[in-house]
Amino acid sequence: MDLLKEKILSDAKIVGDDILKVDKFLNHQMDIKLINEIGKEFKSRFQDLEIDKILTIEASGIAIATVTSQYFDFVPVVFAKKTESINLDKEVYECNVFSFTKKKNYKVRVGKDFIKKGERVLIIDDFLAQGCSVKGLIQLVKEADAKVCGVGIVIEKGFNNGRANIEKLGVKVESLATVDQFKDGQISFK
Amino acid sequence: MDLLKEKILSDAKIVGDDILKVDKFLNHQMDIKLINEIGKEFKSRFQDLEIDKILTIEASGIAIATVTSQYFDFVPVVFAKKTESINLDKEVYECNVFSFTKKKNYKVRVGKDFIKKGERVLIIDDFLAQGCSVKGLIQLVKEADAKVCGVGIVIEKGFNNGRANIEKLGVKVESLATVDQFKDGQISFK
Repeated sequence: MDLLKEKILSDAKIVGDDILKVDKFLNHQMDIKLINEIGKEFKSRFQDLEIDKILTIEASGIAIATVTSQYFDFVPVVFAKKTESINLDKEVYECNVFSFTKKKNYKVRVGKDFIKKGERVLIIDDFLAQGCSVKGLIQLVKEADAKVCGVGIVIEKGFNNGRANIEKLGVKVESLATVDQFKDGQISFK
Repeated sequence: MDLLKEKILSDAKIVGDDILKVDKFLNHQMDIKLINEIGKEFKSRFQDLEIDKILTIEASGIAIATVTSQYFDFVPVVFAKKTESINLDKEVYECNVFSFTKKKNYKVRVGKDFIKKGERVLIIDDFLAQGCSVKGLIQLVKEADAKVCGVGIVIEKGFNNGRANIEKLGVKVESLATVDQFKDGQISFK
């Protein structure tokens, strides 16, 4: 997706060896016009998919999933929670996810009421690196006896093995921009 | 906003004495069609407002702010972060907020790059109770030497003093549904 790649080249920053900081337009400040184009592109990539629900994970996935839903006839969006809350039902699907950016395990939860048996689910997230959080979401959907119909990712780190980890589970992955290993502080795309 | 009130009556749950659980349509599973109407209603309530940016707080405010931006000519949305992240700049505006639902203090942060001097900011959030998180956001905007032009709230608890706390700061508050004290497990509106 050219518009996204241009935005990454102009506004993303490389931090250290492997972090791509996109807080200027995607996960702290958000360019809603760009995210609108991202939603439209997901619709075009998954146009034949009939889905009942979009599942994402707080917080960065929420805006992207919301806009994507508008292109999928306003299907409900559910965001998995990373923190415990007294507002969250006791009845949850839960799994552990390792965060490479935070270097620790955290729990991810979805209320059992919100993924139902047989539902067809599209998973949306901002980044795919090792695929830990997406694998966690797939596990939650499977526990609910529902079906993951596809995974839509905004930015994939092509030098990590997230895609392989997910495709191994038989799930189709679509990424809108796949970045190569950073060399000399330069971003290039696959 | 009638559609919202009907949704609250049909799908919200009262927990304990003062918690209104809206995780079926607003802050865990999200009814994007309803949120679209919410965005439209905020535009109508703040139609004369010229704004440069929408500020909200993760996670429940993000979808609402995103859709609202679409009605305000796609102004950028910034969401304040509740957790530390190595992806967050060191240069942040920061304040402490007390959460009544979690019974603890937490820090709220916005990267200094994302609220600029003189910017006109609309604050959007899902709930207003004591007004702690909105007051925190107002403080961050003031620190940045920017201006809060209004506060848009989806559900106000009319029996708490959040509105008074914010109006005291000279800021206009618009709530789309104001609930009264819960009596005998019944929800009524002001």
